[in-house]
Amino acid sequence: MTPQMSKIGPIVLLTDFGLRDCYAGSMKGVILGIFPEARLVDLSHEIEPQNVLQAAFVLEAAYPYFPRSSIFVNVVDPGVGSERRILAAKTHSGIFLAPDNGLLSGVLAKTEKYEMRSVTNRRFFAKKISQTFHGRDCFAPASAQLAKNESLFNDLGPVVSDYKKLIRPSPRIERGKMKGEVLFFDHFGNAFTNIETRHLKKNLSTNCQVWVGRRNLGPIRNSYFEGQKGDAMALMSSSDILEIAVNQGSARSVLHLKKGTPIEVYFEK
Amino acid sequence: MTPQMSKIGPIVLLTDFGLRDCYAGSMKGVILGIFPEARLVDLSHEIEPQNVLQAAFVLEAAYPYFPRSSIFVNVVDPGVGSERRILAAKTHSGIFLAPDNGLLSGVLAKTEKYEMRSVTNRRFFAKKISQTFHGRDCFAPASAQLAKNESLFNDLGPVVSDYKKLIRPSPRIERGKMKGEVLFFDHFGNAFTNIETRHLKKNLSTNCQVWVGRRNLGPIRNSYFEGQKGDAMALMSSSDILEIAVNQGSARSVLHLKKGTPIEVYFEK
Amino acid sequence: MTPQMSKIGPIVLLTDFGLRDCYAGSMKGVILGIFPEARLVDLSHEIEPQNVLQAAFVLEAAYPYFPRSSIFVNVVDPGVGSERRILAAKTHSGIFLAPDNGLLSGVLAKTEKYEMRSVTNRRFFAKKISQTFHGRDCFAPASAQLAKNESLFNDLGPVVSDYKKLIRPSPRIERGKMKGEVLFFDHFGNAFTNIETRHLKKNLSTNCQVWVGRRNLGPIRNSYFEGQKGDAMALMSSSDILEIAVNQGSARSVLHLKKGTPIEVYFEK
Repeated sequence: MTPQMSKIGPIVLLTDFGLRDCYAGSMKGVILGIFPEARLVDLSHEIEPQNVLQAAFVLEAAYPYFPRSSIFVNVVDPGVGSERRILAAKTHSGIFLAPDNGLLSGVLAKTEKYEMRSVTNRRFFAKKISQTFHGRDCFAPASAQLAKNESLFNDLGPVVSDYKKLIRPSPRIERGKMKGEVLFFDHFGNAFTNIETRHLKKNLSTNCQVWVGRRNLGPIRNSYFEGQKGDAMALMSSSDILEIAVNQGSARSVLHLKKGTPIEVYFEK
Repeated sequence: MTPQMSKIGPIVLLTDFGLRDCYAGSMKGVILGIFPEARLVDLSHEIEPQNVLQAAFVLEAAYPYFPRSSIFVNVVDPGVGSERRILAAKTHSGIFLAPDNGLLSGVLAKTEKYEMRSVTNRRFFAKKISQTFHGRDCFAPASAQLAKNESLFNDLGPVVSDYKKLIRPSPRIERGKMKGEVLFFDHFGNAFTNIETRHLKKNLSTNCQVWVGRRNLGPIRNSYFEGQKGDAMALMSSSDILEIAVNQGSARSVLHLKKGTPIEVYFEK
Repeated sequence: MTPQMSKIGPIVLLTDFGLRDCYAGSMKGVILGIFPEARLVDLSHEIEPQNVLQAAFVLEAAYPYFPRSSIFVNVVDPGVGSERRILAAKTHSGIFLAPDNGLLSGVLAKTEKYEMRSVTNRRFFAKKISQTFHGRDCFAPASAQLAKNESLFNDLGPVVSDYKKLIRPSPRIERGKMKGEVLFFDHFGNAFTNIETRHLKKNLSTNCQVWVGRRNLGPIRNSYFEGQKGDAMALMSSSDILEIAVNQGSARSVLHLKKGTPIEVYFEK
């Protein structure tokens, strides 16, 4: 049942700590103090403060592209200092550490086999633990020790099976159309919706039409370049999600999109 | 007297160069050209331009968590091109390079034994030195050579003992209370004051009361989670500094805090 | 004719992907999956979206300071998904990968000998290629394979000699003065012009006078410190470009500079 990892890989950091303060750096210092050979990769430290949903989304989009030996350290943790658990999940795609706040729910929903533990063993933590900075005092030392010796996974704490799940709104099908909404924006202003390739299935056709309010964006395109510069369009993103984009522009500002803006896909007749 | 470093560790970069220009990258290029095996860690490149006080604060909070073999390269340098010296301090916590502008004063005040030199030996610098970019032409090559061979420390230049000190306002004690002020904010909007654990000593009690203007924040808490979401509170930060925070919010905006806003701690009666 | 690279060095990333999304991280994941020993260096991920000119400028300023064994992966790519080619240029300063949109034109104009190929061989790409994210699916796997085995350069695709060139406005000489303009700002607010050391040549004298509109900035200085705090001045930047700066301030805001603002250098009489 327990997935085997072939080789210890990078320690991948995902936080909302930003890059101007001491936080991300302190985590790296702790890791290198325990395991000087660690390979550190920043996935992002620019998650919006306390936005667990965004962190889950970024992690879900990126983890399939990392080595299967990676250790993903995810610290967007509005509950730091509360009784929330720290989870560690061992999967065929690597080991994931995160607070039990839903951050891992996207990854785990897509993972057939995993072993999950609640990290309670104090030997994985710093001697003195600040109740406001578990990233430095709990997550960093635990990840470094796992990177050094993956077999310590079994010592982290008791096996658990339940975890907090984030509920992302599902798209709905109504008489020949699918209704979804905007969930996130990237820094280009591209909008990502809750409609995924797997939802559209056989309805994913070049003849279906995408609408934002009263604006018809035409069929689902394959690349930004099927329109002219400035054209708004819909296409399947590099993470297999319906994306609203503007060729060389920001869909967010051009189309006045917001989180929750409805998006409709009319199927081919 | 001279501290010995066990093993050469990471080169830790702290600058106000930002991440959009060529500056931080050029420093890394120079370091890797001299010492291809160097491990580079970004502490921060997002220090506010020329804000030496902030850089000193971030360095002071982070350095204890790095390996003792680290080389800290600190380039917040409003005096670049002037006669200000470049200092190198060898301590039990690693080697610190910085302009002589007070950036190291927090670290050195906490360091019992160190050897400090003024870096004047031109063999540690690039052949051509731009008077506007010592980070690339002086700090980077010197740090790379030290990382390669720590014993070169003695060749950097003459031993010096004086250095510029930053004066941080001290908290004052008045009839049963301590008066301090806000010094910095982190990117979450948490406010850090000039009141530290060592100032409060025996007065640090769960019965003391913290006030911001006419607002009572109650006793000093242990974690953000001793209040409800949105509650303002005071607690000792992960760096042992009195911190004003809002549970899952920004104390800076909720409490309209500014640099210099007075903070008072009333002691237990 | 083909330059030889002594040793495989760092993979240097330059993109407009920002640091909050999954993009830069996903590229790193792909690279480490192919070549776990890769040394990754971020030159910048904060290029303004789709600003190829800025990317070319940052690359040109930084590449001379990296090891000659570096692989520069440059993905500012408004034409992703169109028919634009992916170029790979092997030079004495390293290998450069970029879309054929002018990003490499500064580097190639300064490079005497190079071998350039159009990257068309599908074995260098991911099996499934998203038409919106060639950074992850084309550039990252190609760079990792080259870092592993530089001799694969010859297998990338056919040798090509033409490439898109960016036209940067040239400064003009008129009766005893040179007229140029502001091209870019760095994050300090320093302004970089199209007047370079090579243009000024023998006219580069401490007696020439620089003017911004009706404001005389005096002669070309050597460092920010030849004026008082707040003084506006002109000097030759660390990249040998005429730079307009304010000592410990932002020339951009103090002098109300914009892209295109005319700058004049009156020669010594």
